[in-house]
Parts: sequence; structure tokens; C-alpha cells
Amino acid sequence: MTPYAEMTKDEMKRALDELLVEYDRFQNLGLNLDMSRGKPCKEQLDLSMGMMDALYSGADMTCEDGTDCRNYGGLTGIREAKILIGDMMENNPDNIIIYGNSSLNVMYDTISRAMTHGILGHTPWCKLDHVKFLCPSPGYDRHFKITEYFGIEMIPVEMSPTGPDMDTVEKLVSEDEAIKGIWCVPKYSNPQGYSYSDETVRRFARLKPAAADFRIFWDNAYCVHHLYDDHQDHIIEILAECKRAGNADLVYKFASTSKITFPGSGIASLAASLNNLEDIKAQLQNQTIGHDKVNQLRHVRFFKDIHGMCEHMRKHADVIRPKFEAVEEIFERELKGLGIGEWTKPNGGYFISFETLPGCAKEVVAYAMKAGVKMTGAGATWPYGRDPKDSNIRVAPTYPSLADLKTAAELFTLCVKIVSLQKLLGEE
Amino acid sequence: MTPYAEMTKDEMKRALDELLVEYDRFQNLGLNLDMSRGKPCKEQLDLSMGMMDALYSGADMTCEDGTDCRNYGGLTGIREAKILIGDMMENNPDNIIIYGNSSLNVMYDTISRAMTHGILGHTPWCKLDHVKFLCPSPGYDRHFKITEYFGIEMIPVEMSPTGPDMDTVEKLVSEDEAIKGIWCVPKYSNPQGYSYSDETVRRFARLKPAAADFRIFWDNAYCVHHLYDDHQDHIIEILAECKRAGNADLVYKFASTSKITFPGSGIASLAASLNNLEDIKAQLQNQTIGHDKVNQLRHVRFFKDIHGMCEHMRKHADVIRPKFEAVEEIFERELKGLGIGEWTKPNGGYFISFETLPGCAKEVVAYAMKAGVKMTGAGATWPYGRDPKDSNIRVAPTYPSLADLKTAAELFTLCVKIVSLQKLLGEE
Repeated sequence: MTPYAEMTKDEMKRALDELLVEYDRFQNLGLNLDMSRGKPCKEQLDLSMGMMDALYSGADMTCEDGTDCRNYGGLTGIREAKILIGDMMENNPDNIIIYGNSSLNVMYDTISRAMTHGILGHTPWCKLDHVKFLCPSPGYDRHFKITEYFGIEMIPVEMSPTGPDMDTVEKLVSEDEAIKGIWCVPKYSNPQGYSYSDETVRRFARLKPAAADFRIFWDNAYCVHHLYDDHQDHIIEILAECKRAGNADLVYKFASTSKITFPGSGIASLAASLNNLEDIKAQLQNQTIGHDKVNQLRHVRFFKDIHGMCEHMRKHADVIRPKFEAVEEIFERELKGLGIGEWTKPNGGYFISFETLPGCAKEVVAYAMKAGVKMTGAGATWPYGRDPKDSNIRVAPTYPSLADLKTAAELFTLCVKIVSLQKLLGEE
Repeated sequence: MTPYAEMTKDEMKRALDELLVEYDRFQNLGLNLDMSRGKPCKEQLDLSMGMMDALYSGADMTCEDGTDCRNYGGLTGIREAKILIGDMMENNPDNIIIYGNSSLNVMYDTISRAMTHGILGHTPWCKLDHVKFLCPSPGYDRHFKITEYFGIEMIPVEMSPTGPDMDTVEKLVSEDEAIKGIWCVPKYSNPQGYSYSDETVRRFARLKPAAADFRIFWDNAYCVHHLYDDHQDHIIEILAECKRAGNADLVYKFASTSKITFPGSGIASLAASLNNLEDIKAQLQNQTIGHDKVNQLRHVRFFKDIHGMCEHMRKHADVIRPKFEAVEEIFERELKGLGIGEWTKPNGGYFISFETLPGCAKEVVAYAMKAGVKMTGAGATWPYGRDPKDSNIRVAPTYPSLADLKTAAELFTLCVKIVSLQKLLGEE
């Protein structure tokens, strides 16, 4: 294929006219498709329906230690859930607190607590004039919303296939005491599907922050969310690496079963050093008597152990792998060689990241929307919704049916072509 | 019976000696009983086991509006849960947000949000030099822990059988802009089991606070928790009364199903004016994508409607009524006429409040503990754990078996007698 940039103006115009006819055809289909959020599809949800039978009216509701799961108590979660989630997160159960249904809520609470009470005896952030966070970008919009909500200044840091630009991270973190944290999705990152390299994780664990209350917010959302049996990314476990580096307290790690069982009805967790956990428990005991132990028990009874969970994740992969592959195939077929877009090919997670020509992302998303296909808002993957190049679009292939997804992906590539040509024509 | 205070010193000493022999006998029993917390007993938990069958692998998991409860979304809860809980709280479903498993957590979050972001555009409390709360006392220790944790100054207000001393509440609230809230358990109060009179509720709704961001924290924890079919307390619904009084935004109201289904695995809720709800939702959308809708659906399918819930509460009452009556009977038999203690006789809720002679509560609790009966820590029912008269003890009769409870109550009365006699002898 001829790269668009090498076409003559007339060739471009002719191509654009043809594409607009095609776009009209799509508009007339009256589509109503959604590629905006990382939501599991119905077939994925059905995979966990067996969990609804894991507890029943005749079930024994006691934990292995004799605790009646139905009553008050158990601030940090039941032991067997800590073991299961510990295996999932690659952490010692003693380093884990099991929370409620949302790891986002745990992250929010963690920031909120740092604002009002500080971390391990340090000044509460709300008493400081400036609090800043590093935000590897493109990144997860809901992370950025939390820090924005708390008035924390967000500094974008460039992402690469091996993780954030660590030269910049190391420099900024060691120089500026106002920098209190960094958002990370280290495995199958949102939106790129990148996994941090061993070197990146090692450099994270060896950070020498100017602020003693600096923390890495390590959102391991996709820890067991592989697409393939053979091509699985692996990252160095961060708590262990921090401990080896003499930096045990440097990281808060988060995970949940939202995209394993039911989003909104799973269990979330935080892993951290014993120092950090003591700090957190001292707060948590004022906030709640305990989280939902019945749901913890339900998860344990359903999966039995980490092997059960991994087998379950293979079923998820079987449902969504064809969707990722279909999108990649269509992108490849429609866009390869045109020089108007690049996209990632992740081994896991929930997203594909698409880079348009500079200045095209908003327009592409608008075109798709006008033809009935909803994408994540352009800019959403950047702090304050400001993508400096207006080029990143997050593609979420899991929720639509395979047939709908193909239609949506085709329309998307059409929009990319149209907007790119308009851009190239306008720029001459 | 002769009141202890009218006995001669010799009579007291002889009585004390006999009681101490009896106390020795109890100590030798090696008891290990717990009357410290308002926990349902196993028989009560068993009443809700049918809820574990309400959802099963073949169940339809969609709400009436077509929402798949298993997926993300639904920030404020599913409609049918709002209707059920609305009927329980006597509020319009549109005034309700369904949360996770803990109303305490909702209260904590509400205070935390006021600290970091303020209420309806007012200055965040963390930016103020002084923030104060009125604390009707004796009251609920976990309320006081939240305000203490946030460094909020707590001012005790006297409680009576009709509610807090409203002359004091009105005066303080109208004069001091630093007073931002008041903790209330308006029905079957913790620990007395008092219910606010109509006049009290009306005066609450008509408060004229100096602070525009003053809120009543109305913890309606025991809204349907009656002990009797015939003697049921009824209180005026506060949101409606505030609206009628032109003070719609004055109150946050909380409730949960913790003591209806399973503590820790129920659903919690907040009811407030639409203004307040908008304010809260703007925050909540940064905190979570949504709460556990599957558990909301499970509750709705189990109860069907408010009548189902009320019938369920009759079963709870049948289990715990004999326990309350046993304690009252033993207190009556052992202590009536001795002039060394007073206790409440609630129509609902989870507690009996006991008033010893001044300066005896700590010692009574210590004596009970030494004989193997754990009571709520003396002082816990007061802000900062400081009971000025050292006289209030919260009695929680629900958790132990009836036989154990009788033993514990007998021991308790014995401890009251011993400590009272020692006090009277010491004071001469």
C-alpha cells in the first residue's frame, strides 16, 4: 500500500471521496456499538455463574479457622482468601488485606487517607502546599481522575514498551519532595498492554525519592489476565524486589477479581510491607468492622486454589482472544503501510492502544461516534484529559460480540483513514 | 429489699463477704462469655441462609430495567434495591444511594469527603482550624471513633428517653459555626434503646445552624429492629420533616441490612436530599465504578418486598426477645430496690443501657472480666472513652446463648452489688 503521505493531493481527494461514501453506508446502518470501556462480555460473565452455587442454604459458612463468615469481624479478610489472592498477586498472605468489591475504591481510600492523615506519621498531604504525582501516559483514566479530584498536580511521564521512562522518573522523584507517588499498571498496561521489563521493575525498587512518604501505586489489575498459553508476560514481583533493595515500604500494590469473576461483585486487595499494613489497619479499623467475608468465602470455594483460577482465566482468554485477533487483523488489513496509525499487540489485559497521526484522535473518535460506535473519549488516557499530541485512542475489544466488534473495528479504521486524509490535505 | 445505702456498715460488710464467696464460685466456673458487642447469634444468621439460594447458577441476573447485575456500572445501586431499602428507611427511592456492605463505612466516607472537599461547595473541614461535633452520650462508640480519628472535637450532649437535650443542641448549633455535625441513633438508640420523640425530631428538622455545612448524621441502624409486634416505637421520618421545615439539606441518613441478613455481607445505604446526593455522586464517581449489585439483587430476590423483610424481622425478634427479657428479669430480681443501678427496657435494637452508682462502671466491667464475662469497655459509650460519671455500661444480650446469657447477667448483677458495696463502704 502507498503511504498516504506519499500520495498526490488529487489521489488523496479521490481516496477521501470514496471513503466518505463508505462512511455514509456505515451511518445508515444505525449502529450502536461500544468499544469504550474494559468490560467483560456476557459470555465471560457466564463463566462465573458456578460461583453462585458455591454457597447455598445448606453450606458450611465457617472458615478453616472456625470463623463464622456471616458475622461481624475479620478486618483484613479471611485467611483462605488471603492465600488465594496471595497466590494470584505473588505475595505472602501476611502482606495482604482483602477489601470489598473495588480495587479502585482501595486506591481512592489510600490517597484519601494520605491526604487526611499522612503516611507512616508524615505530614498529611492536605497540609502541604504542593502534592504531585507522576503519571505514565497514556495511562488509566480512572487513576488520573482520583488524583485530579484531590487537587494533586499530575506530571505525565512517557511510556515505552518496557514501561515508563525511568530516567525521568528517577530524576524527578529524587529531586522533588512534592512528588508523592506514581501510578503504574505494570502488566498488560492500560491502554497499551505493555509489561514492565525486569530493568524497569528493578529501577522502581531502587528509587531514592526525596519524599520519605513517596509511594509507588502499583495497580496489578491484569496479573493473571493472559490471552495466550504460550506468550505470557511475566514481571518481577515488586514487593519482593523492593524488600531486596532495602526499600520494603516503597510500594502499595493493588489487585482484584473484577475481571476474573464479576466486575463490581468480586473481591479487591492491597499488598504492602508489614509497616505499611500496620499504618493502614490503624485507619481501616475506624472505617469499617470488616469487608464482605461471605463473598470472600464464595470466591475461595469456587476457585479452590490458584490453579482453579488459572484454568478459569484460560476460559476467559478463549472468549476474548478471538476479539483481540479480529481487531488486529482488521487494523493490519486496513491500515498497514499507510503510515497513519500504530497499534499495540498485547499478550493480555483488556486494551489495544492506537496512535493516530498527531492531531487526529479527537476527530477520529467523533467520526466513530457519529456512525454509532462509542470509543473511550480521546484524551482520556492522559492527565486532565489533555493528550498533548491528540493522537492516543484506547480500543476496548472485549464487550461487543465478535460480529459487532468486526463492524466497529472496520468503521474505526475507516474513520482513521478519513481524518488522516483530511489532516494531510489541510496541512499542505 | 433494703436499699444498700440504708444498710449499716456492718450489714454492708456481711453482705459483701457473702457476695465475694458467690463471686469465687463464678470464677471457678471458668466462664468465657461475651456481652460486649451487638452481634447477632448463630440462630439469627441461620434465618438468612435462604438468601444463599436466591441467586444460583441458573438464575436470571438481570434487573427489572435490563441491567446485567454482574457487570460494571450502576453507581448508585439497582432500582429494585432502592425501592426495598426505600421502604425500609421510609424514603423515596430517588433519595437513596445503595452502597457496599457497611453503613459505618458510608459514614466514615461522608466525614472524610467533608474533610477533603467540603459539603456543597463550602470550605473543606481540613482547611478549618476547628471542627466540632455534638455527641449525644452515652452513644455509639464507633461513631465517636470516626470523629476522633479525624481530629474533630467532640462535645457530649445529655441523652434522655426522648432523645438528646434539644435546648443544648439548639443553643450550641446556632451559636458556634465550628459545629458541623451531630451523631444520632434516633430509633432504639445505642446503647439505651431510646427512640426520639416527635418533638425531638421536629426540633432537629427546625435547627438553625450557624454553619451552612452543618449536617445531622442520622444513623437509623435499627429502623425495623423491633422486639415486639405490639410495642413498636415509631419516629417521624427526618428527611420529610426537614423538607417540610424548609431544611431539606440538613440531614444525612444511614441504614443497612447488617442486622437483618448478615453483618458484613449486607447492603448499606444513604438517604439525603437531591442537592446532597448530587454533591455526593460527584465524589463517588471518582471513588468507585459501583457497589456490589449482585448482592443487592440477592437481597431483593430473597425478601421480595418490605413485607417479606418485616416478616423476617419477626423471626429475629423471636430469637432475641427472650434474651432481652431474661436480662431484664434477672436485673429486676437481683437489683430492684437496692438503689445501686438503673437500666433501660427497650422495645427494639440491640442493647440495654445500665447505669451504676457514680464511679463504679469501670470496676464492674473489670470484675466481670476477671470472672470470664466480657462487657463493652466502660467509657466506650462516651467521646474519647471518658464517661464523666464512670457509670454507663452497655449490655449486649443477643450473641450468647440464652443459658450463657443468664449466667452472664447473674454474674453481672453480682459484680454490680460487690462494687457498689465497696464504693459505699469506701465512701463512709
